[in-house]
Formats: sequence, structure tokens, C-alpha cells
Amino acid sequence: MKTQNTILRALARQPVDRTPVWLMRQAGRYLPEYRKIRYQVKDFLELCKTPALAAEVTLQPLRRYDLDAAILFSDILTIPDAMGLGLYFTEGEGPKFKKPIQTLADIEAITVPDPKTQLHYVLETIDLLKPQLTIPLLGFSGSPWTLATYMIEGGPSKTFSKIKAMLYQQPETLRLLLEKLADSVSAYLIAQIQAGCNAVMIFDSWGGILTTDAYQHHSLHYMEKIVKVLKQHFPTIPVILFTKNGSQWLELIADTGCDAISVDWNIPIGNARKRVGDKVALQGNLEPAVLYAKPDVIKSEVKKIIENFGDFPGHIFNLGHGMQQDFDPDHVTVLVDAVHEYSRK
Amino acid sequence: MKTQNTILRALARQPVDRTPVWLMRQAGRYLPEYRKIRYQVKDFLELCKTPALAAEVTLQPLRRYDLDAAILFSDILTIPDAMGLGLYFTEGEGPKFKKPIQTLADIEAITVPDPKTQLHYVLETIDLLKPQLTIPLLGFSGSPWTLATYMIEGGPSKTFSKIKAMLYQQPETLRLLLEKLADSVSAYLIAQIQAGCNAVMIFDSWGGILTTDAYQHHSLHYMEKIVKVLKQHFPTIPVILFTKNGSQWLELIADTGCDAISVDWNIPIGNARKRVGDKVALQGNLEPAVLYAKPDVIKSEVKKIIENFGDFPGHIFNLGHGMQQDFDPDHVTVLVDAVHEYSRK
Repeated sequence: MKTQNTILRALARQPVDRTPVWLMRQAGRYLPEYRKIRYQVKDFLELCKTPALAAEVTLQPLRRYDLDAAILFSDILTIPDAMGLGLYFTEGEGPKFKKPIQTLADIEAITVPDPKTQLHYVLETIDLLKPQLTIPLLGFSGSPWTLATYMIEGGPSKTFSKIKAMLYQQPETLRLLLEKLADSVSAYLIAQIQAGCNAVMIFDSWGGILTTDAYQHHSLHYMEKIVKVLKQHFPTIPVILFTKNGSQWLELIADTGCDAISVDWNIPIGNARKRVGDKVALQGNLEPAVLYAKPDVIKSEVKKIIENFGDFPGHIFNLGHGMQQDFDPDHVTVLVDAVHEYSRK
Repeated sequence: MKTQNTILRALARQPVDRTPVWLMRQAGRYLPEYRKIRYQVKDFLELCKTPALAAEVTLQPLRRYDLDAAILFSDILTIPDAMGLGLYFTEGEGPKFKKPIQTLADIEAITVPDPKTQLHYVLETIDLLKPQLTIPLLGFSGSPWTLATYMIEGGPSKTFSKIKAMLYQQPETLRLLLEKLADSVSAYLIAQIQAGCNAVMIFDSWGGILTTDAYQHHSLHYMEKIVKVLKQHFPTIPVILFTKNGSQWLELIADTGCDAISVDWNIPIGNARKRVGDKVALQGNLEPAVLYAKPDVIKSEVKKIIENFGDFPGHIFNLGHGMQQDFDPDHVTVLVDAVHEYSRK
């Protein structure tokens, strides 16, 4: 039986009746009911900024699937938007900023947003959601490094030339930005928890493009700062860290004091489990593209991960990255049911 | 002193007077003399297909820098082009195919290209180069998996949805394509070696997007087949394998029988060295973006890698990925000289 606590118990490495499951980007375009809501507004950002609609799309996957957590519907780039960079989305091209960061003066001009005023729409979405949920609500933010990549590149990048040039030419300038972002993310996640989130996750989408040394100094260091601030304020609220393409750094990530690490599909989760022991819980790690497969393949891939993790506490089943818009919603039913079936004690 | 054999000795894990160095994409747009040649022809592909010009740009970096190897100037996608898919390049968008692979029938229709006729321009470039070189010439090819990603996606991709859908829905169809590509790459590299290449490298740019299981079955398996064919024909010609974002699989890659593994910058090269022992040589692993830094930073980063590798045979200094067009050519001088200075015994 699912209880309010299944995922929170798993995050605390306590025994559970069955492995909890949620899916990154579980609310999204692959759901026809999402597309109906999405086209009521002009763009993705307006959807994020309209609490009634953001709450509605957060709830949609919970009506279809037996999931163990809701995740706040929002975007990782709300903080730089609140800083005045002018976030916008163009179809098929990803997020962009009207005013990317170019100089030290740009960074000096930035102030840490007050979540209660500048990100009020996120907190209002949480307010609307909480009375409607019987399962935990996850809050989230982008990591300081990941936010900085978009702010400096001005949008998605293949080479990350601008931020890497800054990293190697003017590391102190970059650090000033990362410090401000760490303070901003801390304040933002504190506000999300105060509004009712039961756990939070930090998405470091682009830490994996760095050397080990640069990852430690420019990404992990700031995530660790945030974890420490959150733990001072809320010792019992779990914090999940996710560095995409970061499986080589699991031991370093586990040392931050976080409660769980989300793992992409580059390594078998059993190997990750051996490396971190029971120091942290592990979330993951199904290759999202498995959802293209027929039901019996989906089931066998789910089974492999559950068996590979082994009979220990501390596994939260998830994808290794987000849902894609061309996935079949019925395949998600197969996935979620398979997790519960194979993991039931 | 540099000798004809420095890099070949390092590839064979034999002692050398100083660490050999070459740079992926060392011939390219960051060099003003390259841009002069490039604009004599209509596009990048015409440059590859004009042996006199391809040979000239291969030689350009050797005139500026004290490099230990030349690498054939060409593209990883010459094989699918020879298969009739219609390779073309649009500025800033990367390679594309006019006729991407969409169905089993498309794959059944493909035949293995005869390098002597359908890729003659590559062999002619080698013919022109050999008499002009006093250092080894490296040949190369894309890996079967990497070629297949471009052939099926039709160009670069962020999600690789099409090939991953095929992988999980019709693995036998994909395997048929990969088999044909493995035969094609083998024939192509055999022809390059017969024409005079002293070592060859297989670029698996996109193996790193796979699960460990899928990497083994759909990328590494075919590279291993190629290594075995090459070793049957030319037991003493070194084969270097490079899977970008593949540092979690070094032990598996070393088991293929290859001579060297090229390592990106995700892990310190000393860790890679400990994991593979002296089973293979290691190539790498400077983060290319270090070339944005000032000379003293470039020098200290080079020194770190040489010290981190340690005083063992079997290191070929290189970047962890290719040169970028906005790098300063003078910074490459600093890099190459620093490798020689710090590694001299």
C-alpha cells in the first residue's frame, strides 16, 4: 500500500513496502490533458506563472498514474527571470534570455530575488496544491552552475564557450555570480519548503560538462552550501541532488550532506549503490527512451533496475532524465505498475 | 628530441624522452591559414573531397607547432556519404543528410562502400601527405553507433529520439545497420592503413548517451569487431578508441584489444591510469576550454595532467575533445611547448 510516507521513508533509507516512483517531467507535453491547458496560454512561461494552471498540470499525472510524489510544475530558470534577465521560450529552441550576463558590471548589478514577492507565483502554486495532495510534494531549483550557464550563454549551448571562457579567464567574476545564485537558490528553496514542499531537488543539468576540479569548485561547492543552509533551517526535509552526466562523482556528491542522489542511466544503479553504500538514497535510473519500447521490454528493463539495486532500503525509482513529449502515456502506466509489482515485498 | 617513433612508442607503452602531443581537430578554423583555404571552396565537404587542399590543411598545424602526429583532415561522416545519404553542411548547424535512414528497407538497400572507388579522395589525400611527413599520420573513422545516430536522426540531435526508438523497438533492424557499418569502417580503416596511416582512431562521439548494456551491445561490440579485423590484418598498427562521455567504461573499452583509449576531461587521467593499468595507453585529457585561459593557467593545467598521469609509459597528451574555432593559435604554442617542457626526462 502506498502511504503518505513511502517516498520520504525511502529518502531516509528506511524500509518500505514497495519502491516509490515518480518521473522527472511527469507533468508535461506527452499528456493530452497537458496540451489542452498549455494552449490556453501564450507560452510555457505564462503557464508556470499562472498558479491555477500550474497547479492543475502538476495534478494531471497523479490522476492517471499511481505515483508516490508530485513535483511542482515550474521551470529551472525562474530565478534568473526574477533577476530581470527576461526569460522567454521559442518553440523547439529551448529557453533564452533577452538580457544575458556579459560583464562583471552585469553580475554586480544582480540582486538576490525575494521569493515572496518576485517568485510569488511559485509559492501560490504550492498553496493551491497542498490541500489537494495526499502524497508528498517536491520542490526544486536549478543549481547555481546550471543557472549561470543559461544566464551567460543566453540560452542552450553545445560548447558553453562563454561561461567556460569566463571560468578560465575570470574565475573570480564567475564566483561572484555563483555566490549570488547560491544565496538565491537557498532563499527560493526555503520559501518552497515553508510553503509546504516535503522535499526538494536541485537540478544540475550542466555540471557534467566540467572537469572534476571545476565541478567541485564551480558546481558542487555551491550545491553543498545550499544543502547546509537548508539543513540548518529544516534538518528533516530531504534534499536530492542531480548532476546529469555526473556518475563519476557520486562519492563527492554524497559527501555534501544531501539525502539522495539522482542518477542518470550511464551506470547500473547497483554499481552506484555499492559506491555510496547507505550514506544516501539513490533515485533513478531508467533510460527514458525505454518508454519507446513495447510493454514487455519496459517491464523487463524496470525489473532489471529493481534487481540490480538489490534488496536494500533507499531506492526511489525514476527516469535518468525527463519525460519526452513523444512518449506514449499508456507506457507510463506499464512502467509505474511494473515498479510496484516487482518491488512489492 | 622528437623522433618518428615517439607517439608510436607511447602507444605501445614503451618509454619515451618526452610525452608526445597532438590535438583533436588540430587542423581547423581557429587557424587563419585554414580559413584562407576553406574559402577557396564552397563548403567543408568540398574541402574534404579535394585531396590537394585536404593535404594542405592537414600540414598547416605542423608548420606552427611541434606536434608528434598529423591527423588526416577529413570528416567522420564520409562513410554514410559514400553510401549515398547525401551529406551536407550548413553554417552553424552541423552535418545533415538529404536522405536519412528511416526504414528497414533503407537499411537493406545500403551496401558497404568500396574505399578505393567511393572514398578515393581520402586515400589520395594520404598519398599526397606521406612523402611530406616526418611524423606518423593518424587515420580515423566514426564508430558504427555514431555514424548510425547521424544517419537515422538526419543530423545532430539533442534527444536522439529516432535511433533510440529504433534501438528499443526494433533492435534487430538497428543491428543490421550496425553490422554493415562495422564492415564499412573496417574496410575504410584497412584502406587508410594500406595507403600509409601509421595508427588509426575510432571516434565514438555518441556512445556516451547509452546505458552500459546498450553501449556494450550497440557501440562497443562493433568497435571490438573492427579492432579484431584490423589486428588480423595489421598486428602492429595501433588502434585508439574514443567514446566521448565514456569514462565509466574504461575497463570495458580496454578489453576490446585496442592499444589506447582517448579520455575526455570528466575524470583525472591518473584515475583512468589506475583503472586500466598498462593494458592500454591513454590519450588526453585537457579540457579544451583551458585554451581560453592566460598562458600561465594553460601551463599549470598541462603540468597537472602530466603529474597526475605519473611517471609511466603510455601517455599521449591531447585535448579531451576537439579544438574550437574561437581558440587563439598562440595559446596552442603555449600548450604544446608546456607538454614537452614538463614531460622531458
